[in-house]
Amino acid sequence: MDRPPVWLMRQAGRYLPEYQEVKGGRSFGDLIGDPRVAAEITMQPVRRFGMDAAIVFSDILVVPQALGMGVSYGEDGPVIERLVRGMGDVERLEAGTFEAVAETMRIVREGIGDRALVGFAGGPLTLAAYMVEGRISRDLAGLRTMAMRRPEVVEALLGRISEVVGDLLEVQIRAGADVVQVFDTWAGRLPPDEYERWALPWVRRVVERIKGSVPVILYVDGCAGILEAMAGSGADVLSLDARVRLSDARARIGRVALQGNLDPVRLLGPVEGVRAGVRAMIGETGGEGHVVNLGHGVLPPTPIESVRAFVEAVGP
Amino acid sequence: MDRPPVWLMRQAGRYLPEYQEVKGGRSFGDLIGDPRVAAEITMQPVRRFGMDAAIVFSDILVVPQALGMGVSYGEDGPVIERLVRGMGDVERLEAGTFEAVAETMRIVREGIGDRALVGFAGGPLTLAAYMVEGRISRDLAGLRTMAMRRPEVVEALLGRISEVVGDLLEVQIRAGADVVQVFDTWAGRLPPDEYERWALPWVRRVVERIKGSVPVILYVDGCAGILEAMAGSGADVLSLDARVRLSDARARIGRVALQGNLDPVRLLGPVEGVRAGVRAMIGETGGEGHVVNLGHGVLPPTPIESVRAFVEAVGP
Repeated sequence: MDRPPVWLMRQAGRYLPEYQEVKGGRSFGDLIGDPRVAAEITMQPVRRFGMDAAIVFSDILVVPQALGMGVSYGEDGPVIERLVRGMGDVERLEAGTFEAVAETMRIVREGIGDRALVGFAGGPLTLAAYMVEGRISRDLAGLRTMAMRRPEVVEALLGRISEVVGDLLEVQIRAGADVVQVFDTWAGRLPPDEYERWALPWVRRVVERIKGSVPVILYVDGCAGILEAMAGSGADVLSLDARVRLSDARARIGRVALQGNLDPVRLLGPVEGVRAGVRAMIGETGGEGHVVNLGHGVLPPTPIESVRAFVEAVGP
Repeated sequence: MDRPPVWLMRQAGRYLPEYQEVKGGRSFGDLIGDPRVAAEITMQPVRRFGMDAAIVFSDILVVPQALGMGVSYGEDGPVIERLVRGMGDVERLEAGTFEAVAETMRIVREGIGDRALVGFAGGPLTLAAYMVEGRISRDLAGLRTMAMRRPEVVEALLGRISEVVGDLLEVQIRAGADVVQVFDTWAGRLPPDEYERWALPWVRRVVERIKGSVPVILYVDGCAGILEAMAGSGADVLSLDARVRLSDARARIGRVALQGNLDPVRLLGPVEGVRAGVRAMIGETGGEGHVVNLGHGVLPPTPIESVRAFVEAVGP
């Protein structure tokens, strides 16, 4: 292949009419819990646009769900029934399994030929934020205040989450994942010292556990101030949000492979702008050690023509 | 003074009991519109904690208000009555004055002795986002989509805002400001190329207009990816949010004076953590060319003892 590989975070989902058709009146939770349906949704964008990878249609909150937190999906996003308030809540966490996502991936693996299958899990800090705060706050003040006042509770929580994230990724790798991505999406809301204290060590633990099986991609939104720390995570590829230049990242951290990072808002504008954005992005890396992607997930109002232009601009 | 100067963004306001007492049942808009009351609120934290500067109690939305947008302050934050949808709305913008803030500053100037008086205005991009979107979205998609589809409208809007921001800062300087801060708070939500296209030129224009009168501080939240661009703004001091290390910033952009940047969430934890955070922050700059401050405004639930610890940890 004479061009960099390309896929898009959240490439399956609401902006696609064929997704809306399959979804019908069902909730998001129903869709990801039904392997046949989830596999179909996973493959829809690959069929339509021909990108190089399919990412399993699932959710990072399958981990809190497996831990017994009670996760449901309403119109305004996910709701977590039982939040973690203290050590007793951590001790009561359960040990679930991941049958639906594994079966989904086995079906997709059969259906996508030699395209790559991407598995994923939330990062421990990001999941802990959901499990303590319920909804993600702008500054993660709830989780961070608990970390300052009850560090032993947050450490125990992160430790337990990390084990289960590792379990999930191992299940996905056995089910056919060619690569896995850790979405530590909200860890970029921490200052660098707190990132190194409360996010990085647990990402490292997850990466170490699966190291040598498949490559690991680490994604953090708002990563411009913590690139050097992320480069020490052991991840094979760093997936960057749009608020840092790929060329600056390379100058700062050397030749780590990068993924990203066109801003998804650009796909709400004219297609010429999408093409120019893709070309500029590839120009920053020369296309080497670069997985072309967005800096965050596809937005629901994105026109289909923008996604097509994004994929086609990478090259034939 | 054998220590760096110190003040805190949003040091006046809701966390102070003396503010609550003065406020009574009045709205935020009533408070900033009444110079005697606003001056009293401005001076409250200086009286209690003895920091080195007072920042006038006002709001960045006085500019949209002067432009005739109709700004009111409800329980859930500010509401802008008329939004900018097209060129006609830009052409209809009015030219208001800034009597209340000027009078507030004259009163404060008399009342704070040799402490510094800080004036401020919103950055053009940040104000344009409010005027187009009403409430600030996570990715400023509303404003940015308009910039992609109708660039001439957004340029005209930014041009008009910049003039009035310059007017406001000149009024504040005449009324006794020793330094002014441009809060381009939400400009850090743009990718670097869009920051350089849609935010920086108008900040430069504002800085050029008042250059030579008083020093200008430029604040952007989420600035880690655009430090080099900000350093080219002409501002005398760059005020950084908490998600970048001061030492990294200095390594990247050289000896520009810096302000910041302890995360305000740290003030929700134990006071020993506040003191350690202040010492670590000063350790990163050696205290030279450094105005000690937070990385964002004081949070409403902040304990008074945390603010006292913050100021005292800088030194006697």
